[in-house]
Parts: sequence; C-alpha cells; structure tokens
Amino acid sequence: MSTSRLEAFADGIFAIAATLLILNVGTDATGRDLGPALLHAWPSYVAYAVSFVTMGIIWANHHTFMHQIEHTDRTFLLLSVVFLMAIAFIPFPTRLVAENIQDPDAARAAALAYGITLTFTAVMFNVVWLYASVGRRLLNADADPKTVSGITRSYLPGPWIYLAATLVVLVNVAVGVVLFLAISAFYVLESSVFGRREPPSSR
Amino acid sequence: MSTSRLEAFADGIFAIAATLLILNVGTDATGRDLGPALLHAWPSYVAYAVSFVTMGIIWANHHTFMHQIEHTDRTFLLLSVVFLMAIAFIPFPTRLVAENIQDPDAARAAALAYGITLTFTAVMFNVVWLYASVGRRLLNADADPKTVSGITRSYLPGPWIYLAATLVVLVNVAVGVVLFLAISAFYVLESSVFGRREPPSSR
Amino acid sequence: MSTSRLEAFADGIFAIAATLLILNVGTDATGRDLGPALLHAWPSYVAYAVSFVTMGIIWANHHTFMHQIEHTDRTFLLLSVVFLMAIAFIPFPTRLVAENIQDPDAARAAALAYGITLTFTAVMFNVVWLYASVGRRLLNADADPKTVSGITRSYLPGPWIYLAATLVVLVNVAVGVVLFLAISAFYVLESSVFGRREPPSSR
Amino acid sequence: MSTSRLEAFADGIFAIAATLLILNVGTDATGRDLGPALLHAWPSYVAYAVSFVTMGIIWANHHTFMHQIEHTDRTFLLLSVVFLMAIAFIPFPTRLVAENIQDPDAARAAALAYGITLTFTAVMFNVVWLYASVGRRLLNADADPKTVSGITRSYLPGPWIYLAATLVVLVNVAVGVVLFLAISAFYVLESSVFGRREPPSSR
Repeated sequence: MSTSRLEAFADGIFAIAATLLILNVGTDATGRDLGPALLHAWPSYVAYAVSFVTMGIIWANHHTFMHQIEHTDRTFLLLSVVFLMAIAFIPFPTRLVAENIQDPDAARAAALAYGITLTFTAVMFNVVWLYASVGRRLLNADADPKTVSGITRSYLPGPWIYLAATLVVLVNVAVGVVLFLAISAFYVLESSVFGRREPPSSR
Repeated sequence: MSTSRLEAFADGIFAIAATLLILNVGTDATGRDLGPALLHAWPSYVAYAVSFVTMGIIWANHHTFMHQIEHTDRTFLLLSVVFLMAIAFIPFPTRLVAENIQDPDAARAAALAYGITLTFTAVMFNVVWLYASVGRRLLNADADPKTVSGITRSYLPGPWIYLAATLVVLVNVAVGVVLFLAISAFYVLESSVFGRREPPSSR
Repeated sequence: MSTSRLEAFADGIFAIAATLLILNVGTDATGRDLGPALLHAWPSYVAYAVSFVTMGIIWANHHTFMHQIEHTDRTFLLLSVVFLMAIAFIPFPTRLVAENIQDPDAARAAALAYGITLTFTAVMFNVVWLYASVGRRLLNADADPKTVSGITRSYLPGPWIYLAATLVVLVNVAVGVVLFLAISAFYVLESSVFGRREPPSSR
Repeated sequence: MSTSRLEAFADGIFAIAATLLILNVGTDATGRDLGPALLHAWPSYVAYAVSFVTMGIIWANHHTFMHQIEHTDRTFLLLSVVFLMAIAFIPFPTRLVAENIQDPDAARAAALAYGITLTFTAVMFNVVWLYASVGRRLLNADADPKTVSGITRSYLPGPWIYLAATLVVLVNVAVGVVLFLAISAFYVLESSVFGRREPPSSR
C-alpha cells in the first residue's frame, strides 16, 4: 500500500477524534443557571483546547515523519492502526479530566487516565517511527541520515516526559495537571518558535 | 508540509463539525406530543441551517485563500490548528442558542457564547491569513497583489461585525440574534451575488 | 475552486452523515430484557439500512453528475452546501421514524418529518444539477448533450415521488412508510439492474 | 466512477466508524467512585481495542483488493455501500458486548449481536470481492491470476469462522467471546507475521 492511503486514513482519524472533543463540552443547565454554568465549565474549554492543539501537533509531526517514508508493510500498517487507536482514545480521558478536575475525590483517577493515554500514545508514536527508521527499513532512499536521527532524538523524550508527569499525579494531582499543561505549551512553542530553526522538528 | 495535506485535514474538520450539528437537533417527546414538539423545536432547525451554511461559507473562503498560498511553515500550521479548533467549537454554542433562545432567562448567555465563538473564529481567520500574506511570507510567487489586498480588505471587517453583534446582545438579546442572522444572510448574498463580480471574495 | 475539493468535502459529509446513523440504533435495556429489546428494535435496523443505502445511492449519483462539471462558481458552491445540509439532516428524521413507527400516536409526525426531509433533499439535488447544466453553465466542454439530458430526465421525478409519498402519509401512515421503502428499493434496483444499460443513471 | 473516489468514501466510513467507537467508552461515576469505575470498565477498553484493530485490518485488506480493481460499475458500488453499512454498524454490537459481558443474563444476546454483525461483514466482504473477481469482471488487465486466487482463498474462510464462533455463543457465551478475541488475534498475527511472506494476504 502506498503511504498516501495511510496518510488519508490517519488524517481522517485525527480530524474526527479532534472534532469529537466538542461532544465533551456541555452543560445541562437551563434558565438563570445557564450563564454561571457556562463560566463554571471553564475546565472543559481548557481541556478541549489542550487536547485539540496536542492532536494537531501530533498530526503535524506524523506528517513530518511520513514524509521520510517510502513504502509500508503489513507490520507498519498494524502498528499505525494501534497508534491511531491511541489517538482516537484521547477524547475519553479528556472528558474525564474536564468533568472531574474540580472534584478532589475524582481528579486523581481522571488525571491518571489522561496521563496513561498520552504516555501510551507517545510510546506508539516512537514504536511506529523506530520500526520504519531502524536499519532504514521503510525510508526514502534519499532520506538524509542527519534529518532521520534528528527526528529520532526529538521523539524519544516524549514517553518519558508524559510518564514522569503521570507519576507526579500519584503524588500531587494539581502539580501533575499543571505539568500536562506545561508539556502542551512546550510542544506548541517548540513547534512554532524553535521548530523554525530545525525543520524536521519535534515530539 | 505541502498545503494539500493541510487542506485535506481542514476539509475533514469542516465536514465533521458541520455534520455533528445534527446531533443538536432532537426531541425526547413521544406519542401525541411528538408532532407539536417537532414544530416547537423550530429554533434548532434555524440554528442548524445558519451554522451549517456559515461553516460552508468559511470553508469556501478558506479554500480561496489557501489557493494563494505556496507553502506552509510550523507557525502557520499551528495557527491553522487553532483556527480549526474554533470551527470545531461552533456546534456547542449553536446548541446553546437553539435550546435556550425561547427562554428569557437563558437566551442572553447562549447568544453571548455564540457571539464570542464566532468573533474568535473571525479573528483567527484573519490571523492565519495575515500571517501568510504580510510581506508575502507564504504566498505563491505569482499571487496577484491586487487579489491579495482584495482578500485582506474583505476579511478584515469580519471580527468587528461579529464583535458589534455580540455587544448588542448585552443590551438586547433579540436584536443581537437578529443581527447574527443578518450577518449570515449577508455573507450568503455576498458569496453568491456580489461574489460573482469579485472572484476572490469575502469574509 | 476546482471540483475535486468540493467532491472531497461532499465525500466527507456523506461518509459522516451515513456513519452517524448508527448512533440512532440502540437500546437501554439490560439483563434479561436485552435479547427481547434487541429483537423489538427491528425498525431501527431497517431505518439504518434504508437511510444508509439511500445516502450511498445519492452519493454515487452526485459523483455521476460532478463528473460532467468542469468548474464551480460561488453560487454553485452555496447551492451545494445547502444540498449537503439536507444530506446531513437525514439522520434526525431517520431516528424519529425508527423510534416512533410502532406508536400510532407518533408515527405520522415522524413519517412526515422523514418525507419532508427527503423531498427537500431531492429538490436541492435537482436545483444544484439544473444550476450547473441549464445553458451548460458549468459543464465540461465535451459533455455529451444526450448524457446531460438523460441525467436531467432521470433526476426530475425524484422530488415529485417523495412529495407524493409524503402526502400519502397524511392519509395513511402505513401506506406512506411502505412507499418510502418501495422508493428506496426502486432506486436500488434502478442503480444496479437498469442502471447497467443506461450508464449515467438515476435519481 | 474511478476506484479512487470509492476508496476515499470507504476511507471516510472506516475512519469515522473506528473513531466513533470511543463514544461507547465511558462511565457516569463521579467522586470516589470514579477510580474503581474506570477499572471496572475494562471490558469497554478491550472491546474498543478489538473492534478498532479489526476495522483497521479490514481497511488494510479492503485496500489490498481495491488495488487489483481497474474500474467500478453500479452493482459493485451498491454492494460496496452495503459492505460499508456493515462496517459502520460495528460500533453498536461492540457497545452491547462491552456493557453486558459481565452480566450473565445479557451477555449471550450481546455476543450474538456481535457475532451476527461480524459474520455479515465477512460475507459482504466476500460478495464484493467475488463480484469483482469472478470472470475477472472488474480486475486490472495485468492482475496476476495467482495473486487473485490467493486473495480469494484467504478471504473465503472468514464468514465460516465468524459463523462458527457465533454458533458457539449459543452453547457457551464465554467460549464464544474468547473465540472472537482469538479470531482478532489470529488476523493480527496473520497480517503482520505470516502476511509478510504472502503479500496480498488475508481475511
């Protein structure tokens, strides 16, 4: 199968998973309660924005690496499907965090679910890339070795960063959630500011 | 990344966000109540139509300007993701307006949410375009300067128009909502009637 | 805008609207009630199948006529958006029929909603095609006049057939619903059996 | 119609149906109950993963056979729509199994619904392929006869395997569900491990 069909399928999953995030934003309040309820629901807006932008950056990075890939094989397709399965799962823990972050009894479980999902996503992102790039198995014949190792270097920390933040949630939920926000902000900055100096950048 | 991949991703977001609007249309009525409930739900049909057509026009305009763009960079991708995040948010305030417009206690909060979302969308639309076009940063080498400045001129009023209607909501909800409808109707007319004289038209 | 971008957007709307139909299929039954409830829900399976196949046929016909079209203009885009708005609306009356067809008090209202939606869809299908084809406004230079008039002839009855079935619902709901099923069956047969003799066929 | 448009439509259906699976994963638990509820919901994660990966493999196989096909006709389009209708149905029985597998009174009905859906999907997959390949009706002129008969041989057992597992559900639900898991695991292994020896592989 050509890479373009896989990219089209991945584009679809990314676009749908990102758009489904809006189904998590809502309130059942009516009448005079609607205004205050809309303000009180701010965590769901923050969660929507963080997950949407995070998915957007992963999507952009996915294209960066697919650009280096010449062809696919069955194992690569299967690993890509598992990676996309993780992407499509993100709306669920996003909703958990949005709905429960203000409740001390439930915030930890929700934040753990978010952290585990993002850690798994980052792991699969690396697995897919390493399967394709180790020994240049599926790479373009003219893929620049420096670019390839630059991509590998920039992706490898992802799982560890998310794992660390997830472990922090076990100790202190608030600090862990702030770390999740900081990771997103870092990737946004890296993508836009730093990324301009190192083209094949990030995550 | 080529512009075609970004366009495919944007097409996906637009198509999904527009189609998800139908999930806002509904009634729990059963039995003899169903007929009257379906008539009583007219605001949800109007809201569906207005938001669907508004998204369709923004989609068409997005392609008009993407047609002038030669390549992308990381910042442009990130700004586009934030713009698409605003597009994918529209179903939520659309539902709020549809469900609450007939309730004097809740209509203002719902209309404000709609106005703020559309104002932010129009702002991001301009930010994305200005980032690409100022200094011809990402434009096609042969993009006609007159066409480019025509696009800029036709987009710039958008945020102010939506901001004005949003402020009117604070004073009088009904007038503000009528303004939202009038803005949509204006863009429809501009797109189809006026737009035929000035090809790179609108919003 | 090239026709290929409009086709991609339309493909997205058709695919999403058809897939969202599954959200209408469901039951809240648990325990021992699940089995009987799944059997009792047969109208929702029929409604799912009829609407999915109907959308699939409209999608195929939409491509048949887009194949004759050389370029687009703003009015054509806007009319296409309104047509796609009707397509994306179909899951709502489909759910109404599935949920209420077994309730004598609610079946008529649900069937009317379905009939009105399908009639409007068929009208918009014709409006879009006639806008493009009258005076050969947007057609390929080499579009065969006989093929073009064949398409026009095969589409024109659609709105009248659905309008007739909708009016029958006012008199007798059961007969009207059987007519809706018969129309779908006819289009399926025409598409697959008759359609093979007249390539640019149907609806 | 070219096969590329049908592939784009099918890609959309596959991507959306797979992504909608996440809407089945959820819990209404709040407060202290959230953590235990998230652990207790493990069947919904397993069901999500199994159905997502199953759809991913069917998608990959669908492309394998579309690659052998030169053109389409109306009957082939219609059969493909019915096949896609089965694909888009999968989220519903997946949810039934996830929600009811731990309830002895409801597990059988849910597992039967899953088995019937997958059996029907496998039947339609074969019908679409056989329609295209028997007598080389729609195949590429240069499609290798050995590859074509290899595809046919690898697809034919699918319906019988799912039918057998569905019949086992009638006798023993637990064994039947384990068989469903084993079938998925087999296809995953066949796709990635065995499939590498026989390129045009599977299902």
